[in-house]
Amino acid sequence: MRKTRIFTPGPTPLLPQAQLALARPIIHHRTQEFKELFLETRRLLQEILRTQNEVLILTASGTGAMEAAVCNLFSPQDQTLAVVAGKFGERWVEICQAFQIPCVTLTKEYGDAATAEEIGEALQRNPGTKGLLIQGCETSTATAHDLESIGNLVRREFPEVLIIVDAITTAGCQPLETDAWGLDVVISGSQKAFALPPGLAFMSLSPRALQKLSGAASPRYYFNLAKELKNQQTGQTAWTPNVSLVVALNVACKEILCEGLDNVIADAELMARCTRQGLLALNFRLLSQSPASAATAAFPPEGVSASELSKKLESRFGVKVAGGQGELKGKIIRIAHLGYFDTLDVFSVLSAIELCLLEMGQSIEPGVGIKAAMLEARQN
Amino acid sequence: MRKTRIFTPGPTPLLPQAQLALARPIIHHRTQEFKELFLETRRLLQEILRTQNEVLILTASGTGAMEAAVCNLFSPQDQTLAVVAGKFGERWVEICQAFQIPCVTLTKEYGDAATAEEIGEALQRNPGTKGLLIQGCETSTATAHDLESIGNLVRREFPEVLIIVDAITTAGCQPLETDAWGLDVVISGSQKAFALPPGLAFMSLSPRALQKLSGAASPRYYFNLAKELKNQQTGQTAWTPNVSLVVALNVACKEILCEGLDNVIADAELMARCTRQGLLALNFRLLSQSPASAATAAFPPEGVSASELSKKLESRFGVKVAGGQGELKGKIIRIAHLGYFDTLDVFSVLSAIELCLLEMGQSIEPGVGIKAAMLEARQN
Repeated sequence: MRKTRIFTPGPTPLLPQAQLALARPIIHHRTQEFKELFLETRRLLQEILRTQNEVLILTASGTGAMEAAVCNLFSPQDQTLAVVAGKFGERWVEICQAFQIPCVTLTKEYGDAATAEEIGEALQRNPGTKGLLIQGCETSTATAHDLESIGNLVRREFPEVLIIVDAITTAGCQPLETDAWGLDVVISGSQKAFALPPGLAFMSLSPRALQKLSGAASPRYYFNLAKELKNQQTGQTAWTPNVSLVVALNVACKEILCEGLDNVIADAELMARCTRQGLLALNFRLLSQSPASAATAAFPPEGVSASELSKKLESRFGVKVAGGQGELKGKIIRIAHLGYFDTLDVFSVLSAIELCLLEMGQSIEPGVGIKAAMLEARQN
Repeated sequence: MRKTRIFTPGPTPLLPQAQLALARPIIHHRTQEFKELFLETRRLLQEILRTQNEVLILTASGTGAMEAAVCNLFSPQDQTLAVVAGKFGERWVEICQAFQIPCVTLTKEYGDAATAEEIGEALQRNPGTKGLLIQGCETSTATAHDLESIGNLVRREFPEVLIIVDAITTAGCQPLETDAWGLDVVISGSQKAFALPPGLAFMSLSPRALQKLSGAASPRYYFNLAKELKNQQTGQTAWTPNVSLVVALNVACKEILCEGLDNVIADAELMARCTRQGLLALNFRLLSQSPASAATAAFPPEGVSASELSKKLESRFGVKVAGGQGELKGKIIRIAHLGYFDTLDVFSVLSAIELCLLEMGQSIEPGVGIKAAMLEARQN
């Protein structure tokens, strides 16, 4: 009878309608029924990514789609620029290294975002750069890069540079205008704002990106996007897809669009603001200078160990928050707001944290965290 | 209220217990709970693959694991030999081409199996061959290669050659003794005998294969098996895994082992024999000279179109059989026996075929197909 609640930025809690969809009898993928469902799902993803571009669905984690972007668009002689502000920025560099694609980095402190100006300067310093590799939200630090100003600047001043965005924790929780901002490749995954299990990644590809598919010399087979495109335009996939997750993705996309994408994003933003206010009132210190709406990362109050707090949240309340990654391991907690969460969930996790802190001997006024969050959530 | 039944060799009908597992609330993968479940699942897969070798689980289709085997074990200067007896044999060649790995082929007619002697001769003709790439069952023609005699011969006469087996439709439905037969890499996937949705692939790696991981020069990142091994030995994965499918895989493996692997395999073999006898009695002609227990492929009686028969099976009874692939498209039907099927399912599909044939004007004695199948199934 013990309840558990996960507040991790992927996997996120499952949408109940999608859970039931996962349990349905399977359909075969080489059928009209699947084709129609698949084509519709691709259209729904276009709406969510705010794009007319082709959207491909891959049976893989988000990292698979990141690799697919790199090895289908670039060759070993192509220069790329990666924005590195945490573990997922570092992943771009590792992927380029694996495929021997030159990659210079614009490195930011953990918690800092890259500005459009800095990216412009970096592209200026590296003429001939073929692609910009960036996150919409660097999940390891819960930091959002300003994709709008970055997209606008790059499109205006560096029209040839492909903008490749890992939007795995951006889509569905942060404004993301793929076409209006000129983003060439936008990647997301099932286990984030879509409130599904991991196992599917999706990516949009601009006409500019599509043109590069045939020329890139890097080896690929499972992630051959030209082959996928040819298949997916007809409602098929190159390889057997995760049929059950596609069915559940269809359900999740419809839920998001039925609720209204702008409302879903506004909810995530509100939850993030409430969480920040609540944590600040509990003497946490925010990690990020440019906090994301996907998750909030914060250092616990002086004298409280992040690991001990996480353990106590789990043992006392069955509440699972994420910890830090890389150099932040053991130093922060991260609380997710993307997907199937609402304001009452924010109050729940804040009250759990508050009671744990009290029981750990912190002198705070009971209710002060929730109060701050409520003031933020109060309408009018 | 209309019932549907799929008889396709992947996806196969889902195990009901696994469907319910798929619908469970998700757990986070960086937890003790997941680690224990994951390590146990790897051990269960070892039992099913009859091996002490390391088993890795990848979030991908089986094709992803085939690519992983090639790009983690071979370099562009390494010679390989692929047995090509259908579409999946051809896939080995395509993967090698994508990674610029030389690949000679031993080509068989669709429906024929390669013998150990032929493979021995081919290896003799191509000294220095580093790897043999083969299927346990070539699903496109429902043809089984004799892995036991092939493994024994290669291990005895070509001890340096790595044997890489696509056992995607072999594991759990055909005898498969990974260690006893000296098979270095054995690949399978969730949507076959494991009766789960597609989305997970697994592969065992012998110590001989593990030694090659560090030396192979082919680019890879998502499918970096050395990195996966390091993680999976501790119950983690390099990238976010399809948690829900891992949970369901655990359930499916336990069902298979609880029933007894030998019994499960014997059931598939019996269903295959019953199907063959039933189809022969209905004037079908079997495609394969070495029929597999995963599926049966057969040409319909003279004057009956395979496509029309398939369509009628679907419209009349909601029965979905597979068709031919490549040059066999429109010419054969394929009926699966691997996974969550029993003898009564065989009688169902045979009676559906029989009634469709009668309604299509074929002059057969009603019940003759089922009778032949029943005689095969009758004990004593």
